[in-house]
Order: sequence, then structure tokens, then C-alpha cells
Amino acid sequence: MVTILGVNGSPRKYGNVSFLLNLALKGAEMEGAKVRIIHLYDYDIKPCLGCLSDDQYACRYPCVIEDDMRKLYEMVLESNGIIFATPIYWYAPSGVMKNFIDRLTVFENMLYIDGTCWTEGKVAGIIAVGNDSGGVNTFSTLMATLNSMGFIIPPWATAVFNKMSDITKERNVLLDAINIGRIVTMMSKRVEGLERKWFKVIGDQELENMINDIALTVNKEKNTQWPSRKKEILKLRKQQ
Amino acid sequence: MVTILGVNGSPRKYGNVSFLLNLALKGAEMEGAKVRIIHLYDYDIKPCLGCLSDDQYACRYPCVIEDDMRKLYEMVLESNGIIFATPIYWYAPSGVMKNFIDRLTVFENMLYIDGTCWTEGKVAGIIAVGNDSGGVNTFSTLMATLNSMGFIIPPWATAVFNKMSDITKERNVLLDAINIGRIVTMMSKRVEGLERKWFKVIGDQELENMINDIALTVNKEKNTQWPSRKKEILKLRKQQ
Amino acid sequence: MVTILGVNGSPRKYGNVSFLLNLALKGAEMEGAKVRIIHLYDYDIKPCLGCLSDDQYACRYPCVIEDDMRKLYEMVLESNGIIFATPIYWYAPSGVMKNFIDRLTVFENMLYIDGTCWTEGKVAGIIAVGNDSGGVNTFSTLMATLNSMGFIIPPWATAVFNKMSDITKERNVLLDAINIGRIVTMMSKRVEGLERKWFKVIGDQELENMINDIALTVNKEKNTQWPSRKKEILKLRKQQ
Amino acid sequence: MVTILGVNGSPRKYGNVSFLLNLALKGAEMEGAKVRIIHLYDYDIKPCLGCLSDDQYACRYPCVIEDDMRKLYEMVLESNGIIFATPIYWYAPSGVMKNFIDRLTVFENMLYIDGTCWTEGKVAGIIAVGNDSGGVNTFSTLMATLNSMGFIIPPWATAVFNKMSDITKERNVLLDAINIGRIVTMMSKRVEGLERKWFKVIGDQELENMINDIALTVNKEKNTQWPSRKKEILKLRKQQ
Repeated sequence: MVTILGVNGSPRKYGNVSFLLNLALKGAEMEGAKVRIIHLYDYDIKPCLGCLSDDQYACRYPCVIEDDMRKLYEMVLESNGIIFATPIYWYAPSGVMKNFIDRLTVFENMLYIDGTCWTEGKVAGIIAVGNDSGGVNTFSTLMATLNSMGFIIPPWATAVFNKMSDITKERNVLLDAINIGRIVTMMSKRVEGLERKWFKVIGDQELENMINDIALTVNKEKNTQWPSRKKEILKLRKQQ
Repeated sequence: MVTILGVNGSPRKYGNVSFLLNLALKGAEMEGAKVRIIHLYDYDIKPCLGCLSDDQYACRYPCVIEDDMRKLYEMVLESNGIIFATPIYWYAPSGVMKNFIDRLTVFENMLYIDGTCWTEGKVAGIIAVGNDSGGVNTFSTLMATLNSMGFIIPPWATAVFNKMSDITKERNVLLDAINIGRIVTMMSKRVEGLERKWFKVIGDQELENMINDIALTVNKEKNTQWPSRKKEILKLRKQQ
Repeated sequence: MVTILGVNGSPRKYGNVSFLLNLALKGAEMEGAKVRIIHLYDYDIKPCLGCLSDDQYACRYPCVIEDDMRKLYEMVLESNGIIFATPIYWYAPSGVMKNFIDRLTVFENMLYIDGTCWTEGKVAGIIAVGNDSGGVNTFSTLMATLNSMGFIIPPWATAVFNKMSDITKERNVLLDAINIGRIVTMMSKRVEGLERKWFKVIGDQELENMINDIALTVNKEKNTQWPSRKKEILKLRKQQ
Repeated sequence: MVTILGVNGSPRKYGNVSFLLNLALKGAEMEGAKVRIIHLYDYDIKPCLGCLSDDQYACRYPCVIEDDMRKLYEMVLESNGIIFATPIYWYAPSGVMKNFIDRLTVFENMLYIDGTCWTEGKVAGIIAVGNDSGGVNTFSTLMATLNSMGFIIPPWATAVFNKMSDITKERNVLLDAINIGRIVTMMSKRVEGLERKWFKVIGDQELENMINDIALTVNKEKNTQWPSRKKEILKLRKQQ
């Protein structure tokens, strides 16, 4: 059985972010997931100290900061999929959601410690809600970030609502939210049991040789094609 | 056997974009994929006419524009995974790559015609190469776009190179490129045979009822919690 | 005399963010500005509560939250130009910088209270520093945000550094930083004395009439040109 | 008298992009500007060849490509302000607008040829129109790009419309559009007569010396503060 974690980055539990997140978790349950929800504003989450800018190896799990992330880290590790639900504050996630994201670096940076990224292969969904605009800007950066942490992004992993109308009447958005829960769960089941390490192929001699061969081939092509093009440009320039 | 399509959005065949794309396709072959490459600058790809802003149902496959996209559409449909390789021109894909992306709308908009998105479930990788900066800005928008077309984004689906040094000496970037090919292929195999329609659940009565139930519950909570909060804010305001 | 405020969103005072910010402020002094620097990590800055999602008029200066922003708000108001210097944490500003930005909403939302935005006409510069990538993604969202708060963005208002080399040897970046200070100051002087209210023209009857006239004209054109185009598309469709 | 150029990146002349652009130009005329409009789809604009990736000095005005940009380049040079109006195609400008932007690189890259950027000090406004979302994502990248070409971004330089309702009834958006014209004009007048070269300070000996001094000071601080912090982190690590 897969576990899906819903992360609420809004200060409200009764608001639209929370509403869509609850819908998504219902969708996850429909597909057989065990679900949990956390409201970030209920926890003490201190901002990242960026230790790795002092020393690449200083950032690793567990984080040096002693706060409520200790509990939240556990929940992240226990989850197959995570749905990040955030209000849109100035075209981006709330500062609290941002702090939570930044603090996940300890998992990603394990690449330098034990050679694996501890969030690799988890599945992500994103919900973003605001009063007017910035939904896509919010989820594009979030999606890029999560993917760089090794998350899988399943099809249509996002739901955006940024109008001031009554959300309970917006069928398409409600459907998007429920589908996020469903899709994150279905994808989580699809990849369950895969060992972490899709990414890591460092030290593979066959690969090293291949790179060298391709580099050689391409360099040869460069030496024959590149100069001729440069000449061509210079020729065009002279004619002017 | 899965087919991976490499799409080169650079005017150069001997340049860094093409180099990394070729590496990625070698990585795909390592995992057993059949690969193809297309150089967009070799084709006549006219810009999108945005028909759907006249009529939501006017945009559908085949596109009304008669040009080389006719051939390229076929190749897209035949592929399980697609690797989009683009130069970084002003923090974004090249105009030619952008035109190619825009023209894929005919597949996505089939949602309104036959209820399915024809790119759903395909797997995407992204390569972005430039002289200095803008790599993340390029791939975040591209990733968001492709996901909204139903593409799956596997872990670490991106390779960026934006220095002016000799790319053949940048082992990490070469490794990233090869891994994109591998990962896109592995994910393609993992989801092979899934029917299109992960997303579409319109017309499901159980779902409709569930939405109504949740909406009711949340509305109740709003009516009990929201006013008290508003009062609280007004109280704070008065004290000032 | 104009005042330029440097805002450090990094946990370090001895790091690269702080270094470039100090350079920028030297550049500002070269042009005759009075400068101040604040290190956000030294202050207690609570996250935004998003009051305006409860009530559009609830968000206004002073913010209901009682914390160190009280002091910082004053400094923002007293400044003609502000240089936002942030580490790049996951392709975006640090969570602490994000909280600071979010809390500035009280000034922007004064549009609904007294008809003016209190940050209108201030001049912004941006410094973003990281280990590898995401500089453009960081400053594009930040720039869009600040502009939507009424800030002027002078030419080349950004400096990015995202390598792991010794920054003190990167002349171009150092120059960019100093220039940000100079340019923000020069622009601040150029617009000094302008009354706030460039934006606000609500209630202008001449404008209302003009809008109506143009709307009428364009509608006429639509009625003559739009249908013919629709016909054309339908005709193309039929031929397929 | 200042000249404001309106650039329409939509295939439609009767659509919403064109409508808002026309409003913006009326706003510009209200402030005394001379205005011109160009519809990019009427011109043959070939995609950028990225010459500077072959040779940094190969890209310069006039561009080696002989097409209609020859005329458009002239119009850009003659303008004090430019309003870029684009449909939102997949969270970004249309491919045609992108090609136009990419081709402006010849002006920016003059920095390497004659030491000045030929678009420096021009003023930019942005209009983005779509059916649903992506407005902010579109203008944030565009704004970052134009600023990196030396454009000034005046307060509230953007208007976004992304609903399917009748635009002629959306007073706020119409007002935003007119204001863009006004503000771009007002700012153009404010900076008229400034010599190009705000940015360029290369070769300034005083500046070089200053950089060296600051670098020395900061390095000293690093040597005293950095090690202690590293020790502190290591100490924390050991306690775990």
C-alpha cells in the first residue's frame, strides 16, 4: 500500500488551498492510498542555513537545526507521493512552504554522502491557489525544483485556482484536484519497489568509454564543419 | 520496444545541443530503445495560428497548416518518449523550438474533440545549452508545459550546460545527458501499455457525488470558523 | 539626497551575497547615495497570514503581525531604492527573503485603502548568488513581483553569480554588483520628487469615454472580420 | 517628442492582444507620444542563427540574415519605448514574438563591438493575453530578458488578461492597458536625452582599485569568521 502525504502551506485550514488538498487526498484514497495531511503553519520550521555553501558535505540528514522538521522529515521519508499545496504569494509559494522545500535539501544532498538522493522516485503533485494570477509561475519553479530532487512528475500533476469566485462551484478545478490525488497514487503504485539509484551511474567504466568515443566523433565533425561555417559568417560580414 | 525521439531545436548540428542530445540517445539505446533524431531547423515549421482563441473546437489533429509538421506529428505519435534539446536564447527555448511546442497543441486539444489528450503518458526529457545563464528558467517553463500536455517527467529529466568551456571535458554534464536518455527510456518501459485516459474522469457519477459531499463538509467548516477569524482581524484592526 | 537600502537575505554576513551587496552599496555611495544595510536573518520576520484572502481591505499598513518588520517597514518607506540580495535556494529566493517580500504586501494593498501603492516609484536592484544554477529563474520572478508593487527596474538591474570559484576574482560579476548600486542610485535621482500616483487614474471621465469609444470601434471590426475567419477555418476543416 | 512602438505578436489583428495594444497606444498618445504599430505576423522574420555561439563578435548589427527584420530594426532604433503585446502560448510568448526578441540580440551584443548596447535606456511595457493561465510566467521571463537588454521597466509595466469573458467589459484590464501606454511614455520622457552608457564603466581605474580594496576587506573577515563557523558545524555534526 502506498502512502500519500498532503502538505498544506497556507495559514488557513478552512481556505481554498486546504479544500483542494483535501479533495486530492480523497482522490488518493479512491485509488487505495493511505493518506496523511500536515499544516506547515502548525509547526516550527526554521529557515535553511545553507550549510553546503560552507562545505558541500556539511548538508546531510539529519539537518543540524533542531526543530519540528525532525518529525516532518520522517513523514516525507515514509511517503511514496507528496502533494504540495500552497497559496500563491507574489507568483510563488508561501515563505513557509519555501522554508519547508529548502530544508528538504538534506535528502537531495545525500548524493554527496552515500551516493543516493533520498527523495528519488517519490511522486509529486502540486496545488496552487491565489486571488488573481501567478499560478503557472508558482508551479513551474516548484516542479523544476522537485524534479531536481528526484521526484517523478506524473501527467497533469497540477491544479491551479486563481479567481475570487466560490471555489465549490468550479467543477473543473475540483476535478483537477481529485485527479492529482488519483494520478500521484497510480504513479506511486506503478514505480513501487524500484530501487533508488535510477540516476547514479558514476564509476561505470563502459559509460566512461562511451563518452570518450562520442566526444571523439563529435570533435572530428566539429573540426571539419565548424571552420567552414565560421568562414561563411566572415564572408557574409565582409560583403556588408 | 520503446521509441525515443530526439528533437534538436538548435540551428547547429555540430554544436553542444546536438552533442548532448546524441549522448542522451546513446543512453536510450543502452536501455534498449529505438531512437530517432530530428533537427527542427531542417523543416518548414510555421507558427501556430491560435485557432482555439476563435473556436475551442477548431484546434485539433491534423492541424490546418500544411507544412513539415505533418511528418513531425507522425514521429511524435510514434514515440514513447521525447527529448527536447534546445539552445537557451534569452532564458527560454529557441523560437523554432517554441513554434514546434506551440504546434503540439493539436494533440492536447483533442481533449475537447475525442476526450483524450494524444500526448498523455509520453515521457519527456529536456536538454538546455547556453553561453551563460537561464538554464533553469528555460526548463522550468518547458517542463510545466509538457506536463500540462500530459507528459510524464521522470526523475532528473534535465541537463543544463551554460558555460563557455569545452563541453567534452564536463563529465557531470555528459553524464546528465546520458542519464536523461536512460531515464526517459526506463520510465517509458515502466508505463508501456497503460491506456491513455489517466486524466479523464468526466461524467463519473460517484466522483460527482463525492465532490458534492466534500464541498458540503468544507462549507460547514467555513461557516463556523471563517467568521470568527474575520472578527479577530477586525478586533486587531480596532486596537491599532 | 537619495537613500539606498541593501537587504541581505542570506544567513551569512561573510558570504558571497553579502559581499556583492556591499559592493553594490559602495557603487551607490559613488553616486552620492546614503546607504543602509539590513541582514534579514538578524530579525524576527514572521510569515504573511494572507489576510486579504479573508477580506481585501484587511491587509494594510501597519501589518497586524507585531514583529521586527515594524522596524524594517520604516526603513523601506525611507528608501528611494532597494537592493534585494538573496542566495539562490532551489531556483528562488531564500524563504526568509520570501517572507520579507510577502510582508511588503501591506504597502501594495494600500491601493485599496487610500488609492496609492506605497512602494510605487521606488527603484529596485537584485543580486542572486548560488552554487550552480537558477539565477535567472530567481530574478525573473523577483523582478516581476517588485514591478507589480510599483518598483522601477532600471537597465541591467541584476547581478548573478552561480559558480563555486573564488568570487573575488570574477571581475565581471563584481562590476555588475557595483553597477547595480550606481544605476539604482542614478535612477532614484532621476525620478526623485515625482508624486506617487503614476498608476492611479480611476475615476477619470475622459478615460472612461475613450475606453468606450475604442471598445466600440474594435467591436465593429470584430463583427466584420471575425466571422469571415471562422468561415475560413470551417472551410479548411471540411476539405480535410 | 518621444516615439512609442507597439509590437503585436498575435496572428490576429481583431483579437484581444491587438485590442489591448491599441488601447495602450491611445494611452501613449494621451501623454504626447508619437505611436506606431507593427503586426509581426505580417513580416518574414527568420529565426536567430545564434552566431555568437560560434564567435562572440559575429553577432552585431546589421544581422547577417536578410529578411524583414531590416525594416523592423530601424523602427526599434527610432523608438524611445516599446510595448510588447503577445498571446500566451504555453505559458510563454508566441514563437513569432520569440523570434523577434531573439533577433534583437544584435543590438545587445554591440557591447562587444562598440562598447554600448543599442537598446539601453529604452522603456518597455508588456501585454499578455490568453485563454486561461500563464500570464505571469510569460511576462516574468520577458521582463527579465528586456532588462538584460538594457530596457527600463517602469512601474506596473504589464497587463494580463486570461479569461474567456468579453474583454471589452473588463474595466481593470482596459485601464491597465491604457496605463502601460501612459507610463511607458512618461518614463521615456523622464529619461530622454540621457546618453547611452549608464552601464559601461569598464576601464575605470578608480573602480578597479575600489574593487580590490573591498575584496581585501571581505577576505579578511572571511578568514576570521569562516573557520569558526566551519568548526561550529563540525562540532554540531559530531554531537549527533
